[in-house]
Formats: sequence, structure tokens, C-alpha cells
Amino acid sequence: MKNGREVVIAGVGLTRFNSYDGQKDDRPYKEYYDLGSEAILDALENAGMAWTDIEAAFCGSVYCGTASGHQTIEKVGMTGIPIVNVENACSSGSSAFRLAYQMIAAGVYDIVIAAGFEKMPRGFIQSTSWPEWQRLMGFNVQPASYAMQTVRYMEETGATEEDFARVTVKNRKNGALNPKARLQKPVTVEEVLASRMIAKPLRLLNACPLADGGSAVILCSKDKLKSKAKTVTVAASVLTSGTYGHTYGGGSVKIKKQDTINYSADMAWNTAGLGPEDVDVVQAYDTMSSGELWDLEELGFCGKGEAPRLLREGHFDLNGKLPVNTDGGLMSRGHPLGATALAQIIEIYRQLRDEAGSRQVSGAKVGLAHAMGAGPNSGIVILKR
Amino acid sequence: MKNGREVVIAGVGLTRFNSYDGQKDDRPYKEYYDLGSEAILDALENAGMAWTDIEAAFCGSVYCGTASGHQTIEKVGMTGIPIVNVENACSSGSSAFRLAYQMIAAGVYDIVIAAGFEKMPRGFIQSTSWPEWQRLMGFNVQPASYAMQTVRYMEETGATEEDFARVTVKNRKNGALNPKARLQKPVTVEEVLASRMIAKPLRLLNACPLADGGSAVILCSKDKLKSKAKTVTVAASVLTSGTYGHTYGGGSVKIKKQDTINYSADMAWNTAGLGPEDVDVVQAYDTMSSGELWDLEELGFCGKGEAPRLLREGHFDLNGKLPVNTDGGLMSRGHPLGATALAQIIEIYRQLRDEAGSRQVSGAKVGLAHAMGAGPNSGIVILKR
Repeated sequence: MKNGREVVIAGVGLTRFNSYDGQKDDRPYKEYYDLGSEAILDALENAGMAWTDIEAAFCGSVYCGTASGHQTIEKVGMTGIPIVNVENACSSGSSAFRLAYQMIAAGVYDIVIAAGFEKMPRGFIQSTSWPEWQRLMGFNVQPASYAMQTVRYMEETGATEEDFARVTVKNRKNGALNPKARLQKPVTVEEVLASRMIAKPLRLLNACPLADGGSAVILCSKDKLKSKAKTVTVAASVLTSGTYGHTYGGGSVKIKKQDTINYSADMAWNTAGLGPEDVDVVQAYDTMSSGELWDLEELGFCGKGEAPRLLREGHFDLNGKLPVNTDGGLMSRGHPLGATALAQIIEIYRQLRDEAGSRQVSGAKVGLAHAMGAGPNSGIVILKR
Repeated sequence: MKNGREVVIAGVGLTRFNSYDGQKDDRPYKEYYDLGSEAILDALENAGMAWTDIEAAFCGSVYCGTASGHQTIEKVGMTGIPIVNVENACSSGSSAFRLAYQMIAAGVYDIVIAAGFEKMPRGFIQSTSWPEWQRLMGFNVQPASYAMQTVRYMEETGATEEDFARVTVKNRKNGALNPKARLQKPVTVEEVLASRMIAKPLRLLNACPLADGGSAVILCSKDKLKSKAKTVTVAASVLTSGTYGHTYGGGSVKIKKQDTINYSADMAWNTAGLGPEDVDVVQAYDTMSSGELWDLEELGFCGKGEAPRLLREGHFDLNGKLPVNTDGGLMSRGHPLGATALAQIIEIYRQLRDEAGSRQVSGAKVGLAHAMGAGPNSGIVILKR
């Protein structure tokens, strides 16, 4: 099927990303379903809709346990609608968004909510999602596998630890302008380089902070939307899995994780009928700050190895040619897995509606959000106004 | 959108449901991804398809951890297709099946796989999926909440512990004919009534056994199917959530879980344009044996409180008027959460193709499978040949 009906975002909701552990006054205790339902009610208000308008719900989460979307929606109202819980690691939100998009585009439903939420586990988070041989080699924690990819990236491109520090500095600077971000204090290159080594060459301040949060996006068929003021259209919503490893019955073997990004990016550009040159604002995937650099390259925003230089030249700054992670990215906003990808999409939506306040990218018309998840899986959303 | 394109099942795959803990010769050690990939390869062979024919995968699981579908498919071949992991408790398989069905019916894809797999946790399984007030009251384990519903059912209908024992006896008798079942030995009413009390009035042999397993169903648009011999068509695939509890912005309050089944059943009959009288074989939801009785009533196969008498009269036996749980049901086949609902669908498929061997229901043309999940959510699939 070609793209089908035009799908727009009718409303969005987002909690502050924070550590909701009840340990400090500004960190009240909240469960994932408190955060998820808060975001859903926020989105309904933003869209000017009632809960009974919603025909189906796709809920993204990773660590919340059984039937978490139902638990969350129980706080909003049980109306009998189909609720599907989606677990696609860091791309859970993109995956939930994409199901909502596909269903509306294909005419199955008119109005669907995609919600994401997470109360992050505390302590050592061991990923079960790597192939067995990689786990045996100690790749079952995120920084370890990112460190390997980062070393390779340094060797191939000449990127330095200072370049990765600059990603953190840029994103923390943007995050300081975002009242919803987990961390709202800027840092310097020196502070990043002086922070504790986690997995060489990556340091503590190269890693995104732990945060809990909720996010929600209401998608709607354009012809069913009552108010059409400043509509934001979904130009593409793409989800791919890895293209490396053996293939049953033959097939090529690829080994770099980046190939997956490139593959999904090609698909997204084709679907949208747009190219990197059309994009005004990007939310890239910066779970570790080095990743943002190769992400921008693999998405096609610059050539391989060019991102560190462009970053140094201010190209990706808020007032640069292509502002990246305008809300602070994972690095500053924080990374509650199920809520992250929808938060990225919400930031693009706000930018395209001129609602981003002090971090507004002037005249932004097209934006892209990318979340890379374990598996691997890659979710890209392109919005246009 | 009305039903859309005709969707058929092109092939199915199923492992033996067993305890794959490596503790006995007939219980080799297997991980969930071993079981899931075995079922997928089995389904491909059954459909006469190559893995590269599959355009998307929806994978149902509950306890497998992050990106479990990707881990499973990594053993089959990473071809870049969208993989979405679905967690809808005991209805995870129905939910994965339904997404595949909706996408094909709406023209998004032509060939999609729905897979389910589970390696069940050992020891005490605490459900996180009940509302907080229910958990505080000790309802966070399945037998406790079923016991409450069972007591109510007894009071309303006059059903007895002997009736629940008869459900177990029937299903274990059917399971003895199913080489894929976890338990393949029949039991007597006396044995059930002499088994250990778990949550009054439910005993050990009123509960389904722990089992690991994998299941997979390949769905296809009918016009794309090469071989049309003995095609089985999806007449309905329905998923609903609860209709009880408070509703944001007003709405009615209902309190019995059974209402959810009734609601989804009405939707399924309407979608299929069929009624209970058209059905030749049923896979009902018997996680605790008492549940099968009210399930059959709420699905519309008999009036409220009539199921115990019909059961006593042999109505639901393999050679009765409406054979129920012909493969042994959860009670005998076992209940690996993510794999269960697709196993139910596979049994209906086999029955409608006259491939059920010694448990074949002669001339079966229409069958229904129902899985009830926490949340609550209810998934019904009606197949017809």
C-alpha cells in the first residue's frame, strides 16, 4: 500500500522527565502509570478531545511489567478499546507511534493514541537483548557496546574524546532551556573530560542520565480533525530491524550496527519524498554522546566522519544551520526508555508549531526524530508542517 | 474501515509445550528464542514459504525481556523487516495475530508472521498487572483472583467443585491425544478432588501446568496465496480491554470481569457475521478450570449457569455437540503465556483442515479461540474454512 490517508498529530502530552523516587521535594514519588496517565490527559487537553474519542491505544514501555498500558489507562478510563503494549527497547515509542500511524493511514481507525512511560529500574541494568555470544563477551551493558563502536568510529574518522564532550556540552546547553528536562544545568568540555571513566573512551558525562517519565501523542486522520490550525503532518514513520548477521536460506552478512540506521533512513527519505537538505531540526539518538555523531552521518545529514568538524563549527547548535537535540536530547532530557522516542517526536511537533519557547528554531518546517533500539531496531519519524 | 481484504492462514508452527529446563532426557534445555525460532521455521515449512517472503513480524511474549522478538528472529535471519514485540499478558498471541490480520486486511502488507514464545519464570509468579488496590488485597497471583470469581460463580449458578474437576478431566483426556501437550496423561474426577488446595475452592489440578513453548502463524492476503487448497480464513480477530472501573469524563461502572468477554464476543460475532450456533469447535480459556465454564457462557455458547450441566451431559466432549479445548486446553497443553493464544488458533486451524489426527472433530467448518489476559484484555479469533 502507498502512504494512504494523511495523518496528523492532533495533540501531545509530556511529563517532566525526572527521578520520581520521592527522595527530594522536587522528586515526588510517582509510578509509571501515574506518569503515563498524566501525559495522556495532557495530550487530550492539548488536542481538545475527550478520552471517548480515542479508538485504540498503543503503549510503549520496557521495564513496567505485564499489561502496563492497561494499568496506565485504568487511571484514565476503561472504555473497552484495544490496548496493545509494545516493547521495542529504546524505539518502543517510535514503534507505538508507527502502529498508530499505519492504522490511521490505512483507514482502520481515525483517532489513535500512542503513549510511552517508564519508571526506570535502579542499580545495574543488564540488557537481555544482545545475542548470546555478545553477552558472553560483556556487551550486555550499553556503555560497553557503545565504547567498542566509539573506538572504531575514532579510528575511522579521527574523532576525539573532546568531540564527544562537545556533544554533551551542546545538548546540556539546550536542555537548560527545557523545563521538562531531567538535567537543566549546562556543563563545560573540561567538566565532561574530568568526569569518571565508564567504558573507555566514554565517561559519565558522555552518558544520558536515568530518568522516569511519560509521553503521549494523539494521531488523527486529517479529514477527521476539527481544527486545522498549524497542523503537523506525519511525512514518514519507519521501523526496521537489523540487517546484519546470518540469514536463514542465504543472504548477505553485514557487521556494523550503523548499517541499520542507514537502511531505515533511506526508507524514511523515500517515504517522505524529502531529503536531509529539507530538514530544519533533528532529534538524534544520543544515549551515549558519541552516538549522536555517527547517527547524524548515517541518517545522511553529512558525510562519514564529517560530523565532528560540523559540530565544532556550530552547525548543530540551536542557532546553527541544522539544530540537533534542541530539547537537550537524551543527554539532558533523560532516557525513560518507553517514553523517550515520543518525547523526541513531541519536540519536533513543538518546533514545527513555533511552540518551543526560548529554544525555538525560527521558521522550522520539517523535522526528524530518530530512536535506535536494541535488537537492533531503528525508528524514524519525519514531520512537516 | 469494514473488514477489508480476505486474510487466510498460510501456515503454522508449534513446538511441543514442555518444561525445557534440561533436568530430564525428555526436557532438554532450550531458551525462549530456541523455541520461538523453531516454531517460525516450522511455520515457514508448513506454508512452503521462505523467510524472505515475510514482510513484518509481530511477536508475543511476557517474561522474555527486551527485544525478545529480535533475539528470536536473529536465529532465523535478520532481513531488516519491522519487528514489533507485543506484551498483552495471556492474550499476547491474540494481539500479535490481530495486528498481522489488521495490517493485511487494510492492505499495508501481504504476508506477516505472528509468533509467540515463552520460557516461564520458575517459582512464585507475581503479577504486576492488577490495579493497586487489588494487589494490596492479595489478588496479585492468578489463583487468588480466580478463586474469588469462582466462589461468586458457584453462588450464582450452583456449580460445584465436581463440575470444575470435570473440566480438568475432559481437557486432560483430550490432551492425552496431543503429542505437543505438556501433560499427556488423563486424570479422574477423584484425583482432581484429592489434589492439594491452592486457593479455595481451586485445587492443584484445577490449574494449568507451567510450560515453555513457541508458536507461529503466517497470515496472508488470500489473493497473494499460491496454493488455495483447504484455505482457512480469518472471519474475525477482535481485541478489547476492560469495560469496568471508572471512566474519565463519566461513563458506566461495571464490576464483573466476565463483562469484558461478553463485550468482545458480541464484537466478534458481528464482525464474522456468524453466531455461536455456527461454531463446530472451540478453544476456550481455561487457565483455571472453573474459568472455562463461565467463558463458554459469556462467549454465548449457552445461557448463564448452563455450562456445568452441558459439560456433565458430554456436550463439550470430543464427540459431543460442541467440542471444547480439543488439544487439551491450557489445562493439559500448558500455558507459556506468549505462546498460548497462537497455539489455540493453531488447533482451530488444524481442526478446520482435518489435520487433528485422533482428536479430529469430524467436518469442522468454523472454530473459535479465546484468550483472556490481565489488564483485562480479551482476544477472540474466529476461523472458517
